[in-house]
Amino acid sequence: MELIPLRVGPQKIDILVGRDCLSQHVGRVKSTCGVGPVAVVTAEPIRRRYARAVCTLLRRAGLTPLLLTVPDGERVKSLRWASYLYDRLIQAKFERRATLIALGGGVIGDLTGFVASTYLRGITFIQMPTTLVAQVDASIGGKTGVNHPKGKNLIGTFYQPKLVLIDVSTLRTLPRRELVGGMAEVVKYGVIADPGLFTFLEQHHAELLNDDLEFLEQIVIRSARIKADVVAKDEREGGLRRILNYGHTLGHAIEAAAGYGRWHHGEAIAIGMEFAARLSATLGVCDQRLVDRQHRLLERLGLPTRVPPRIDPQRLLSAMALDKKIRGGRLHFVLPKRFGDVVVEPVGLTVVKGVLKACARR
Amino acid sequence: MELIPLRVGPQKIDILVGRDCLSQHVGRVKSTCGVGPVAVVTAEPIRRRYARAVCTLLRRAGLTPLLLTVPDGERVKSLRWASYLYDRLIQAKFERRATLIALGGGVIGDLTGFVASTYLRGITFIQMPTTLVAQVDASIGGKTGVNHPKGKNLIGTFYQPKLVLIDVSTLRTLPRRELVGGMAEVVKYGVIADPGLFTFLEQHHAELLNDDLEFLEQIVIRSARIKADVVAKDEREGGLRRILNYGHTLGHAIEAAAGYGRWHHGEAIAIGMEFAARLSATLGVCDQRLVDRQHRLLERLGLPTRVPPRIDPQRLLSAMALDKKIRGGRLHFVLPKRFGDVVVEPVGLTVVKGVLKACARR
Repeated sequence: MELIPLRVGPQKIDILVGRDCLSQHVGRVKSTCGVGPVAVVTAEPIRRRYARAVCTLLRRAGLTPLLLTVPDGERVKSLRWASYLYDRLIQAKFERRATLIALGGGVIGDLTGFVASTYLRGITFIQMPTTLVAQVDASIGGKTGVNHPKGKNLIGTFYQPKLVLIDVSTLRTLPRRELVGGMAEVVKYGVIADPGLFTFLEQHHAELLNDDLEFLEQIVIRSARIKADVVAKDEREGGLRRILNYGHTLGHAIEAAAGYGRWHHGEAIAIGMEFAARLSATLGVCDQRLVDRQHRLLERLGLPTRVPPRIDPQRLLSAMALDKKIRGGRLHFVLPKRFGDVVVEPVGLTVVKGVLKACARR
Repeated sequence: MELIPLRVGPQKIDILVGRDCLSQHVGRVKSTCGVGPVAVVTAEPIRRRYARAVCTLLRRAGLTPLLLTVPDGERVKSLRWASYLYDRLIQAKFERRATLIALGGGVIGDLTGFVASTYLRGITFIQMPTTLVAQVDASIGGKTGVNHPKGKNLIGTFYQPKLVLIDVSTLRTLPRRELVGGMAEVVKYGVIADPGLFTFLEQHHAELLNDDLEFLEQIVIRSARIKADVVAKDEREGGLRRILNYGHTLGHAIEAAAGYGRWHHGEAIAIGMEFAARLSATLGVCDQRLVDRQHRLLERLGLPTRVPPRIDPQRLLSAMALDKKIRGGRLHFVLPKRFGDVVVEPVGLTVVKGVLKACARR
C-alpha cells in the first residue's frame, strides 16, 4: 500500500495504490464525497465485474450511489455521451456538492472527468482506474476530454480529481490485450525518467504478463510516482509535462487515422515510441543501442512496433499536424537521449517522412 | 479610462473601462494574443454594428482575425453551437496558442468562454462586452456556460479571460430594452454593496437612460470594481460570491419557465430582486423602506417588478429547486438587510410560496 500525495497549485490530490485498496479505504471515499449525492460512472464490462461490489462497499459506508453505465469503447468519449450523463445527473437532481466517481479505464476517466468539470461548473471528482493504462497514466494529472471526429481529446479541460484510488487487484481480470497495452506506458516511464524501471521490465516481463500482483503493484507505484512528479511541476503542459507525450504524437495519429478503437492506445504509442526512438537515432540524438533495447522489450511484452502499412502516411502526417503538440507550424517530438533523459525538438518534415516509411517496412 | 486589475489565484486579469477603449488599447490586445491565431466570435447584430471596425483595428495592429458569427439570442448557448465553433476552429487548424475574443453580450461571452476553456483543454480568452449587463457583470469573473433544456448554465466552467476590454461607447447603439435590462444588475450592486451607487441611480436615471456616456462610464466602472472585488475574494462561489446572486434564484426560474429568450435576463432579475426584498421584509431581515425605494427605482428605470401571473408558481418552484443555489435540499436566498449589506439564508417553502403569490398579484 502506498500513498502518493500530489499538489497542483492550491489543490491536494491523494493517490492511493495497493491491492484491495477500496475495501480498506472506503472511509476516505466517503469523507471526500461529503454530504452530497454520489454517482458511479462505469462501462458495461466493468459493471458486470466490479461495479456491484464497489456499490455494495459504498452503501455499507453509508453512501447511496447512483450507477450510470455507458457502453464500452472509445466511442463514448463524445459530446453525445457527455450529454447523456448531464441528462441523467439533472434527472437525479444532482447539485453542486455532488461527486462523480469514474470506475473503469482511461475512456471512462476522461469522459467522467469532463462531465464532472463542466456540470454546474465543476463538482467533486474521484478516479478509480481499473486498467493498467488508466492506473499508471490517465487517472493522474487532471486531463479530461472527449474526442472530435477530427481528432482525439480536442475537447476537454484540466480538472483534478480529489482522490485517485488505484486497486491493482483489478488487473487480474483485465483482458490480456489491455494489460499489454498498459505496459507501453510503463515502458515510456522507463525510457523518459527511470532506467531502473526499464531494467525491471526487461527482467520481469514474464511475471508481469502472468498477472503477478506483487510485481504489478511495484511498476504501478513507480509509474504513478513519476507521473505525479511531472504533473506537480507542470500541470498545464507548458514545459516538462510534454515529455509524457513520448510516442504519443504518432500514436494519436495512428488511432485517429485507423478509426478510434481499432488500435489499443498502448499499441499505438508502442509504435509511436519505436518511431520516436528511430527518429532520435537518425538525428544522432541517441545511439542505436537504445532503439534496439526498447524494440526488444516492446516485442517481449507483445507490443507492436511496425507502422501499419495500410494507413496512408499522408493521413498520419495531417493527423500529427492537427495534434496539440504542434507549435508555430512545426512538428515537435519527444526524443530520447539516453534512458531516463529526453528532449523535445522540432523535426523537419523530410526526416519525419523518411523514418515513417522505414517504420512501415520490416 | 480606468484600469481595474483583478487577481484570481495565480492569474492576473486586466479590466479596462473607457470610451473608445479598443482603438486606444489594441496594442494590449495584440500582446495578449501573442503569436497564435485569433478568432472573434460575435452575433449577427453586433457583426453588422461593430465587428468590421474591430477586425479592421486588429488587422492594423498586425493580427489576422477569423470572424465567427452565430445567430442572435440565448438559444446559441447550447452544446450544439459550441460544437459548431469547435468545428470551425478545427477546420482553421487553431492550435493551443490560439486566442478567442468574445465580442458581444453575455450570451456571446458565456458561449465563447466555454469553448475557449474546453478547446484543446483551454486557449487564451479575451472579453469585449458590448451590452451593459455584460460590461458590469457577465464579462468579469470567469463564469462560462451553456444551457440545458432543463436549466440555464447547467453546463459550464470557471475560466478567466486574460483581458476584459469594456468600451462604454458601444452602449450608445444598444437597444433600449437591453440598456434597461443591464440597469437591473447595476441596481443589484447598489443594494448588495454600494449605497452611493444606489443613490446615484436614483438621481441620474434620466441621463443614464438617455445614453449619457459620462454617467454610463461612471456606473460601469463602479459596478465592475464591485464585481472584481467579490470575484478576487471568492472565485468559485464558496461564500461571498453568492451575494452576486441577489435576485437571480427567482430570476433564472422565470427565464427557464417562460422559455429562454422570452424575458430579458435583467428583467427577470428585477422581478427576482423585488421578490427577494419582499421576502426579506416579510422575514423581518430588512424594513419596508428598502423594498419601496428599490421598487420605485426599478419602475423609474422601466424594469418589471411583477411575477408574470401566467407562469404556474409550481413550475417556478421546481426550477428554483434545480438552481445551483440549492444546498442540502433547502432553497437559499440572498436577502438585503440594508443598502450595502446582505445575508444568504435558507427560507422555508411556505414563506417562499406566500411571497411568490403576493408578487404575482398587484
